[in-house]
Amino acid sequence: MKILLSIVLLCSLTFTSQAQERKRARDYGVKIGVLSPGKLNAITDVAGVTVGHVTLVQGSNIRTGVTAILPHGGNIFQDKVPAAIFVGNGFGKLAGSTQVQELGTLETPIILTNTLGVGTAMNAVVEYTLRQKGNEKVQSVNAVVGETNDGGLNDIRGRHVKPEHVVKAIEQAKGGEVAEGNVGAGTGTITFGFKGGIGTSSRKLPASLGGYTVGVLVQSNFGGVLQIDGAPVGEQLGQFSFSRQILEKADGSCMIIVATDAPVDARNLERMASRAMLGLAKTGGIASNGSGDYVISFSTHPGCQVAYSPKEPVQQIPLLHNDEMSALFLATIEATEEAIINSLFKAETMTGKEGRQIQALPLDKTIQILKKHHVIQP
Amino acid sequence: MKILLSIVLLCSLTFTSQAQERKRARDYGVKIGVLSPGKLNAITDVAGVTVGHVTLVQGSNIRTGVTAILPHGGNIFQDKVPAAIFVGNGFGKLAGSTQVQELGTLETPIILTNTLGVGTAMNAVVEYTLRQKGNEKVQSVNAVVGETNDGGLNDIRGRHVKPEHVVKAIEQAKGGEVAEGNVGAGTGTITFGFKGGIGTSSRKLPASLGGYTVGVLVQSNFGGVLQIDGAPVGEQLGQFSFSRQILEKADGSCMIIVATDAPVDARNLERMASRAMLGLAKTGGIASNGSGDYVISFSTHPGCQVAYSPKEPVQQIPLLHNDEMSALFLATIEATEEAIINSLFKAETMTGKEGRQIQALPLDKTIQILKKHHVIQP
Amino acid sequence: MKILLSIVLLCSLTFTSQAQERKRARDYGVKIGVLSPGKLNAITDVAGVTVGHVTLVQGSNIRTGVTAILPHGGNIFQDKVPAAIFVGNGFGKLAGSTQVQELGTLETPIILTNTLGVGTAMNAVVEYTLRQKGNEKVQSVNAVVGETNDGGLNDIRGRHVKPEHVVKAIEQAKGGEVAEGNVGAGTGTITFGFKGGIGTSSRKLPASLGGYTVGVLVQSNFGGVLQIDGAPVGEQLGQFSFSRQILEKADGSCMIIVATDAPVDARNLERMASRAMLGLAKTGGIASNGSGDYVISFSTHPGCQVAYSPKEPVQQIPLLHNDEMSALFLATIEATEEAIINSLFKAETMTGKEGRQIQALPLDKTIQILKKHHVIQP
Amino acid sequence: MKILLSIVLLCSLTFTSQAQERKRARDYGVKIGVLSPGKLNAITDVAGVTVGHVTLVQGSNIRTGVTAILPHGGNIFQDKVPAAIFVGNGFGKLAGSTQVQELGTLETPIILTNTLGVGTAMNAVVEYTLRQKGNEKVQSVNAVVGETNDGGLNDIRGRHVKPEHVVKAIEQAKGGEVAEGNVGAGTGTITFGFKGGIGTSSRKLPASLGGYTVGVLVQSNFGGVLQIDGAPVGEQLGQFSFSRQILEKADGSCMIIVATDAPVDARNLERMASRAMLGLAKTGGIASNGSGDYVISFSTHPGCQVAYSPKEPVQQIPLLHNDEMSALFLATIEATEEAIINSLFKAETMTGKEGRQIQALPLDKTIQILKKHHVIQP
Repeated sequence: MKILLSIVLLCSLTFTSQAQERKRARDYGVKIGVLSPGKLNAITDVAGVTVGHVTLVQGSNIRTGVTAILPHGGNIFQDKVPAAIFVGNGFGKLAGSTQVQELGTLETPIILTNTLGVGTAMNAVVEYTLRQKGNEKVQSVNAVVGETNDGGLNDIRGRHVKPEHVVKAIEQAKGGEVAEGNVGAGTGTITFGFKGGIGTSSRKLPASLGGYTVGVLVQSNFGGVLQIDGAPVGEQLGQFSFSRQILEKADGSCMIIVATDAPVDARNLERMASRAMLGLAKTGGIASNGSGDYVISFSTHPGCQVAYSPKEPVQQIPLLHNDEMSALFLATIEATEEAIINSLFKAETMTGKEGRQIQALPLDKTIQILKKHHVIQP
Repeated sequence: MKILLSIVLLCSLTFTSQAQERKRARDYGVKIGVLSPGKLNAITDVAGVTVGHVTLVQGSNIRTGVTAILPHGGNIFQDKVPAAIFVGNGFGKLAGSTQVQELGTLETPIILTNTLGVGTAMNAVVEYTLRQKGNEKVQSVNAVVGETNDGGLNDIRGRHVKPEHVVKAIEQAKGGEVAEGNVGAGTGTITFGFKGGIGTSSRKLPASLGGYTVGVLVQSNFGGVLQIDGAPVGEQLGQFSFSRQILEKADGSCMIIVATDAPVDARNLERMASRAMLGLAKTGGIASNGSGDYVISFSTHPGCQVAYSPKEPVQQIPLLHNDEMSALFLATIEATEEAIINSLFKAETMTGKEGRQIQALPLDKTIQILKKHHVIQP
Repeated sequence: MKILLSIVLLCSLTFTSQAQERKRARDYGVKIGVLSPGKLNAITDVAGVTVGHVTLVQGSNIRTGVTAILPHGGNIFQDKVPAAIFVGNGFGKLAGSTQVQELGTLETPIILTNTLGVGTAMNAVVEYTLRQKGNEKVQSVNAVVGETNDGGLNDIRGRHVKPEHVVKAIEQAKGGEVAEGNVGAGTGTITFGFKGGIGTSSRKLPASLGGYTVGVLVQSNFGGVLQIDGAPVGEQLGQFSFSRQILEKADGSCMIIVATDAPVDARNLERMASRAMLGLAKTGGIASNGSGDYVISFSTHPGCQVAYSPKEPVQQIPLLHNDEMSALFLATIEATEEAIINSLFKAETMTGKEGRQIQALPLDKTIQILKKHHVIQP
Repeated sequence: MKILLSIVLLCSLTFTSQAQERKRARDYGVKIGVLSPGKLNAITDVAGVTVGHVTLVQGSNIRTGVTAILPHGGNIFQDKVPAAIFVGNGFGKLAGSTQVQELGTLETPIILTNTLGVGTAMNAVVEYTLRQKGNEKVQSVNAVVGETNDGGLNDIRGRHVKPEHVVKAIEQAKGGEVAEGNVGAGTGTITFGFKGGIGTSSRKLPASLGGYTVGVLVQSNFGGVLQIDGAPVGEQLGQFSFSRQILEKADGSCMIIVATDAPVDARNLERMASRAMLGLAKTGGIASNGSGDYVISFSTHPGCQVAYSPKEPVQQIPLLHNDEMSALFLATIEATEEAIINSLFKAETMTGKEGRQIQALPLDKTIQILKKHHVIQP
């Protein structure tokens, strides 16, 4: 197993170095929306949020991985965060949804992986949580695990994600820049017929709108008719769902994680989560029948944390008024749209299972189209 | 009351004649999406669907109306149609939603009007239904009434919609071309800061995808950052939510009606309804906090009708397989997007309550922008 | 209209005097559950809650009415209360549900009336709210109106509930004892084949469980197999759904209002609301296909009120921890069960539309059965 | 592992032999409801349904197991059945819910186990499905796995359920009588403070109501105030939630499986599922905060099966009219109530983790109470 992990890390490094050749959408001048990104334009702009990837690229058939997102650096089980889940299209195996919806809290790291790895990831999250200091008497753990199906490039039936990969993703989670593209749970995914993967983005509201930050991370793996900041890139590249050349089905999935530091409760977090689907729509996603499109949202506001063993039965909670939510909705939409586009910009051409090759979004042609449509200044 | 109605019809005619000067988006070369519209590019392309408007423009303060949509020309109570409702954002007064969701059927015309007119419209639909031949013993009627708030231009507190307006809208419903813009329930609405109103569009799937038709009608009255077929029209016109010049809030609402002739049940109709919100997203809508965004969908397939007094307890129903739904989702998204854009193209500048004037979308500038962004061939 | 109202009041008085001959279940020794009732054993045990009835008994065919429940004595629109709605079975016309679910607040009195009176009641609530001091600029009102179908005894198609009845029910709402049985919205209802009506009950938790009060009011109008505190009264009286002698259908409806002074938000209020259906189940209710069973719950805790025009965007809200909810759930179940039983104990035999007579629950026989089953000490 | 399994089987046998000393509720004269049970009074009265248990009783600390329920004997993935899930209280880890809710179908056996065994059971179901003949190309499997927390008697943190136990439960599933009490997933559960476990019951409607069968199986593990056919057994035994002597919390969970041969679709199956909670209520359950109460319902009607690879995009489906549902609702309520009571009657006193002993429901005293309250003829 040690050997395996060395290979994994090696691959991961290799891909990281390659990935640096492709830049993020904004680096090419694509400025999605009317709000400004946070400092890193990443989910980690929300203070305390960390992300960890384990990338599994082995032999010719294994192209998968794990991504972990943690809302804070403490014991999440003991200090739960307000959370919500919105089901855009429920053709997926998301674990943990009903408890989040009932209790309004998240009590573990969020794990993303492949469709047939959910059981393994649940087990790993349970193990991780039981082992944590302070959780010695815990007997119930609601692991939140999402997935998309990377079976186009990955030997998904081989079920190569192991518990140690999941724990490693959690343990190496960190703040700062977030690797995108063919990493972690995005290693083997396909989006709009091109190589997809992990993408992230953020928005920071001006002080007049509360000054809050919204960060989004996606595992993109879905179809439709690609638009980039409104430009019809999919059509002009001749690659889109329901076109004659391509698949008639637009199946696939998208996992979307939305973090904010605003003091919002589960009800308003669910409303934010539902807006992430509007961001997906703007990239040309259609939430096709076979797509498992889920949004998991949480607040990191310290005053909103919910203790497992509260000192008092009644807690004073800071709560943003409904009337203030619209700017957070817009921020969620914009950051989701840009995170998906970033996943395409950063993902590289990959050859996987049975020699199948999925092309990266061709940047030269794409930029030409974006210029033609005045998304980028010509 | 007769006098009142004469005035109404007069105004209606006046506006109709003006409205013909503005054409629909497609007439200017805007071709949204990759699927083809039906013959009329209207909800009435779905066979049997009819639409009726009553427009109330009186004095300087009354700018409101009623729109009725009927799934078929028979007794809807006796021959109910499969139906679903999706709540995009529930800040609205939609009547009838829980029964549609529970029983999966629609048993009355769908009425759209203004926010404070829902009670009156319910009463009118109840009266209409009780009076219908064959309904002599009916004691329970689930009136489905949606609304948006036209209080920006209309003296909404005056509650000028009367039962007779509602019944008239039902009775004069017809197939064929559908009047758009400042008519019926769209008379006083505002969208993206411009004059909104009624809009419609449709898609007809190719035979290889089932050959079904999807038709959409909207009552647009919401905010956000307007995009037309991807082009950033709102930004370039300097008119969008959260910009400095304009309102900080993007409130408003959108009622969306989705009709299809595909043999789909309530579950899949709800899935179609949820996709209409993706179409709204593509126009720049954000489902703001104050927006009441609802989608009502129904199937007109004759084999799917549900009799009030069935001959047999078990009925054989034709049902489209889940796998076939994706094309219907895309059709719903495209038709919704185009219906909203049509509502803007067709609506004219209006002066209303307290002399407030809302400008129509400036077509010349808009077309310039669309050309610049290659939405229209320059 | 004055004449009409005099008649109404007269009838109401008459019925009140008759109703005093029948006592509440607890007066006969029926002690439902393990928790103790509040002082009045009524929804008005929750401080601030008031109830108003208008009873319409006119001629031989009009047997209907209106009941209003107010969460506090101030301007509800300006100082909204946290609220939730749970749909037990959605075959009903409840108005206002989607906005309560979206925003988590109640902004008007709750009105109960008959099925075909919902539109009229909405109009009346809108009028009442627009007229209230401080609401001069309000343009959007979410009237919450529930109903059950009293068409068995009442000429429901005649639609005899008028706006002034609704406003009167609101205006004469008061604390203290609550009239039960054939009053207000319960005037013409039928439950388990016997005369139903309005019923109420409450529970006060011991200090060790928080000391909170839960009050319930029901408009009972449904079928099933009546049990009173577990005793099979329906079966032993030979009157139950699906028995040979009686109707095969158990249709009807139940509106349930749950009030509490606990600091709970909309999410936990929805959970409490769902437990009211468990209380209904214990009376033998089955939420039949034709039943519109809805629960509306709200909190009167002053710290949880939501201002229409808040001074600050972020409010500090007291919030009870999830772990403390179970006792409130039990209180809701017990108070709902007892409220329904009270509606049967207090309702009197009534003759209505087309001479149809519905018998009151026969108290002598019922008490015999309760003694036999040791519900009451023999 | 073989050794382990021998021990398991041995223990299982031992317990089976003991369990025969305790009879089912109906054998003592308890006749819940007004409808008649099917031949076996078990979920297996629904033709084609099979049940398999693996019971893990090892050493002093392992008291857990697995129960599998299969809707038919074929390849469930290839021939899916209509299904629905209702969340009574979502404090649980149920896997597979969102896909069932979205697509309306069940494509695997249903597995019940303990809270921390869900990941393992998912993996096992995935393995089992991938291995099945005909599924060689399947890349996506929606395992439906429910759980309750047996950590009171079982070393749940030790996670002793292994994939082979799950597969064994599936493979040994059979029709006919169903073992109840301390078997399978009910091995270590606690209900109303007594030993709980697996229970089952059924109802067969008379031909006049359609002649359909409804079967229920429960894994009971929850608290409240026990009532047996209405008699206050918990109170009279001095053992109930919120009493002074006992736990203040009523936590725990209940998994409820509802099968029917009626031609009902996912929408009406969800309605049936929600009624199972009414049956739970009648036993004194309160769906406490910490309870994970889920109902999974499915139809075995052959005409309603949904092929993975349909021959035609449109299928003719037999569908029962909404109006016919009430009798199925009552059947669901009664069978759920009786299944829970059976789980208590059949479960035996068990000593488990850390020497903790949970008493079986004391039958002698219980029968005395039931006689006193005339549930059983005295």
